[in-house]
Amino acid sequence: MSFKIYLSGEIHSDWREKIAQGIADHKLAVEIKSPVTNHQASDDCGTSILGDEVEAFWKDHKAAKINAIRIRKSIEDADLLVVRFGNQYKQWNAAFDAGYAAALGKPIITLHDTELTHALKEVDASAQAVCSTPEQVVEILAYTLNETL
Amino acid sequence: MSFKIYLSGEIHSDWREKIAQGIADHKLAVEIKSPVTNHQASDDCGTSILGDEVEAFWKDHKAAKINAIRIRKSIEDADLLVVRFGNQYKQWNAAFDAGYAAALGKPIITLHDTELTHALKEVDASAQAVCSTPEQVVEILAYTLNETL
Amino acid sequence: MSFKIYLSGEIHSDWREKIAQGIADHKLAVEIKSPVTNHQASDDCGTSILGDEVEAFWKDHKAAKINAIRIRKSIEDADLLVVRFGNQYKQWNAAFDAGYAAALGKPIITLHDTELTHALKEVDASAQAVCSTPEQVVEILAYTLNETL
Amino acid sequence: MSFKIYLSGEIHSDWREKIAQGIADHKLAVEIKSPVTNHQASDDCGTSILGDEVEAFWKDHKAAKINAIRIRKSIEDADLLVVRFGNQYKQWNAAFDAGYAAALGKPIITLHDTELTHALKEVDASAQAVCSTPEQVVEILAYTLNETL
Amino acid sequence: MSFKIYLSGEIHSDWREKIAQGIADHKLAVEIKSPVTNHQASDDCGTSILGDEVEAFWKDHKAAKINAIRIRKSIEDADLLVVRFGNQYKQWNAAFDAGYAAALGKPIITLHDTELTHALKEVDASAQAVCSTPEQVVEILAYTLNETL
Amino acid sequence: MSFKIYLSGEIHSDWREKIAQGIADHKLAVEIKSPVTNHQASDDCGTSILGDEVEAFWKDHKAAKINAIRIRKSIEDADLLVVRFGNQYKQWNAAFDAGYAAALGKPIITLHDTELTHALKEVDASAQAVCSTPEQVVEILAYTLNETL
Amino acid sequence: MSFKIYLSGEIHSDWREKIAQGIADHKLAVEIKSPVTNHQASDDCGTSILGDEVEAFWKDHKAAKINAIRIRKSIEDADLLVVRFGNQYKQWNAAFDAGYAAALGKPIITLHDTELTHALKEVDASAQAVCSTPEQVVEILAYTLNETL
Amino acid sequence: MSFKIYLSGEIHSDWREKIAQGIADHKLAVEIKSPVTNHQASDDCGTSILGDEVEAFWKDHKAAKINAIRIRKSIEDADLLVVRFGNQYKQWNAAFDAGYAAALGKPIITLHDTELTHALKEVDASAQAVCSTPEQVVEILAYTLNETL
Repeated sequence: MSFKIYLSGEIHSDWREKIAQGIADHKLAVEIKSPVTNHQASDDCGTSILGDEVEAFWKDHKAAKINAIRIRKSIEDADLLVVRFGNQYKQWNAAFDAGYAAALGKPIITLHDTELTHALKEVDASAQAVCSTPEQVVEILAYTLNETL
Repeated sequence: MSFKIYLSGEIHSDWREKIAQGIADHKLAVEIKSPVTNHQASDDCGTSILGDEVEAFWKDHKAAKINAIRIRKSIEDADLLVVRFGNQYKQWNAAFDAGYAAALGKPIITLHDTELTHALKEVDASAQAVCSTPEQVVEILAYTLNETL
Repeated sequence: MSFKIYLSGEIHSDWREKIAQGIADHKLAVEIKSPVTNHQASDDCGTSILGDEVEAFWKDHKAAKINAIRIRKSIEDADLLVVRFGNQYKQWNAAFDAGYAAALGKPIITLHDTELTHALKEVDASAQAVCSTPEQVVEILAYTLNETL
Repeated sequence: MSFKIYLSGEIHSDWREKIAQGIADHKLAVEIKSPVTNHQASDDCGTSILGDEVEAFWKDHKAAKINAIRIRKSIEDADLLVVRFGNQYKQWNAAFDAGYAAALGKPIITLHDTELTHALKEVDASAQAVCSTPEQVVEILAYTLNETL
Repeated sequence: MSFKIYLSGEIHSDWREKIAQGIADHKLAVEIKSPVTNHQASDDCGTSILGDEVEAFWKDHKAAKINAIRIRKSIEDADLLVVRFGNQYKQWNAAFDAGYAAALGKPIITLHDTELTHALKEVDASAQAVCSTPEQVVEILAYTLNETL
Repeated sequence: MSFKIYLSGEIHSDWREKIAQGIADHKLAVEIKSPVTNHQASDDCGTSILGDEVEAFWKDHKAAKINAIRIRKSIEDADLLVVRFGNQYKQWNAAFDAGYAAALGKPIITLHDTELTHALKEVDASAQAVCSTPEQVVEILAYTLNETL
Repeated sequence: MSFKIYLSGEIHSDWREKIAQGIADHKLAVEIKSPVTNHQASDDCGTSILGDEVEAFWKDHKAAKINAIRIRKSIEDADLLVVRFGNQYKQWNAAFDAGYAAALGKPIITLHDTELTHALKEVDASAQAVCSTPEQVVEILAYTLNETL
Repeated sequence: MSFKIYLSGEIHSDWREKIAQGIADHKLAVEIKSPVTNHQASDDCGTSILGDEVEAFWKDHKAAKINAIRIRKSIEDADLLVVRFGNQYKQWNAAFDAGYAAALGKPIITLHDTELTHALKEVDASAQAVCSTPEQVVEILAYTLNETL
């Protein structure tokens, strides 16, 4: 059994690397996809490629629409969405991705500190598992793919 | 032409009332649905009906799952989602609803202050219109239904 | 807000009547559908209408296929499936209905004694609420439709 | 022609091994998937990975939701569901899987003793074939893939 | 409970009238739709409205495409397809309608003499019931809607 | 039988009025929907409601996205799309609507002069009928709904 | 570009071999699937594997349901359905397959003598091409895949 | 990450070659599909394979339906549609393809001169990016696949 996963959310910590390392350590047949995690590039792609904008709104709009090409394909291809919420930013895009995946019937794993439990209750309620560490995410993948605890 | 709309998001301001008033003033054929906006009831419904929980997580979980019955039916029935983001709270559930609606191909109107433009760029990029006042939402409905500006 | 619900499962107790009574008492805008609950008719419909069978298997087969016309339409029309498991019978058809509804993305409420918790864990895991009394089902409907606890 | 099949149901007998052996003997191009069949692991996975629970209900809930990741992907990937009902347990999860597959339009083969015919009539009525031995399942696969009786 | 049915197939006998009469006699909440059963009109509609054709193929083509507007909407709206095969004509369009309905997951009732059993085995295998008289069709509808045998 | 139709395309001639008149004359049970056909309003709606734009591109963009709310709902609700191409303008939006309807499996009637046959061959090939006058469209509706030529 | 095709219909002539030979001659990247074309095996598979039946109806029923496993998967996997109608038999199953494919949005090529034009007008109207020889089918495949006439 | 793209529209300029060259230069994992771009062959395929027609309409019709086999499969397989509008022709088929892709939820990139902005506003409004040069299309692909600006 093999899996494609999409890692949505926070880009300011190393949770993606930890999950990737755990997958490598367990030799799991998991293909990982992520959004563009270079913050500057992801903010600038629209105007850099398609031309400058005077209004910040349109700069963001052009960037977000280009980024959506990668994100939506990744979610649609994924067998599982892992969505990470940090304590610092609003990350509405991560919650948007989770809602998008939920409507497609994709299983979701959320990853966040327990202090966010109340604020994330609707997202967590749509998830198959609520993790507080990347290691737990890896353990779920290992159990799901290799039947080992 | 008539419309069903779902008003998702912020529950601490009177934006829903303003939209409802505008719809009434313009005599628009719009049916409005909302989540349970009684904050206390929406937090307590799970344990109140199905029994207490020791863990806050499970209290929230039971409530969120019951609330999802109303929310998902409302989104699935809606012709249009209006999603309001305030400046104060994280409102991940509002972004989740927007992602859910986007995956179903429902048109979305976002409603938020311009200072949230950058944080909401992915949600705005999936929207048909980005409003900063409830009056603008009503004007779009009036134009869409009655062809008047 | 109004709802269509389908009441699947046990036919040897009065849980359907209790839910119907509760809905009437609360004056809820809920339309109730059920399978044919006349046990004899539901067993005999195939051979009674389409001709006798020597083999019990084909008698059951003809009946079950005719009954499926009503059941599937009811599930597909429903906004919510309430599925009741009693302690006495195997009721695989109730679990089948729950799986069918789950794949269609319909919300599910299960209704069973707590002693069945372990045996029903997969069905419960796909449900929005797990009730042990018909009154709880009615309370969820009342809360969902009328926003009252 | 090749096939992906999912073997749902009873975990206390060797029917999966017999089907796998028959597939190997006939050199059929069939990829087999199963749920986690280690009973202990499948019961404990939730609490083992995500932390203990006081309530048995939540222990089961966490486990069942994690197990559903593997099960649902396997059903969705499968060309055919084989579902086994034994005489001993309630196996509501097997019937749930059958209903889930039926709603997705997946063909189903049931496998059970003839004494269960009446109790399983609704599930059998949704199946393409009703077998009483694993050998019959293999023969159907051999015929379907290799055109040989 | 109410039903929409589509009556596909043979236009040279009075089976549609018999079913309609039976529905009226039983006061069943059934809405009946049929293709255009005026043979001449259904053959001529294309050229009559859109202009003559030299080639018989294009005359038929224009007619069949216009007729398909009514037929497909009727099937898509229907809760149930009743498809009648007579002994005399090839009625490939009836079998086409049955296949179309089957792919949409609509329940099918076939209606034909037993001498056609072998020739219609694939269509019958996709049906919920195989009738040999219009009265049987009515009895199934009466049972399904009113729970009476 | 009743129908919902959407009239897409040319806004500079009176073809919509002719179809509406024909429907009224024949007393057909047809509900007609159209885009906003006030050219000025449809161009200005975005900036009028949501604020001015310096760039013509963004002015058009805001307008087109708001107009899409009405158009897409109308197509999705329609049983039939009638799409009119005039000789004068490019009307890419009409062809876009036709492609959109085709992908949803909606039947399409095209309406255009024969001199456009070659340029419109791909759109015509996806249509159930190709008309050159509004009267022909009405005749098809009359035949489809009332079975009369 | 490569294609998967399903060859449905007549089993008493060598049209499948001619198409296969043409595909080989043109070195086209086409994967061909067919139903079980061994007439005896396809009639007997049900009773041979699952046990004898007294009634011819149930013998046919068991066989047809098993055959449907292969047929439906093949149609669902196919990029194109080629459906052959001979002059001799009723071949309702071929028309059923065509209807099934049409509802899934699969392109269809029909293959039959011109004398069947009127009887097959509804099936032809749903097809992308109507051929009278296997060579024409091969030419369409060659053109579609290799852009050569 | 790899992508399948479909290049729809103008066949009288070298935009496809420029995109293909850019993809090769950047060593992007992109598979390109196009319609048959041999204008003569694409006009003649119907009559060349299936026999002459007296009426130009039917010649075009037969050709367009055969061409649709390739086009629709390519769009359905594609992760992204790039649609090119030139200044010279009406290219309703390109707009039709864009509408078709939009209804399937496929991301779209449009490619056209800025002077076409107003005429193409509805198509552009459904696109993720609006480019004026093939190089911009390649840059979006490079950014999406390789995360580099």
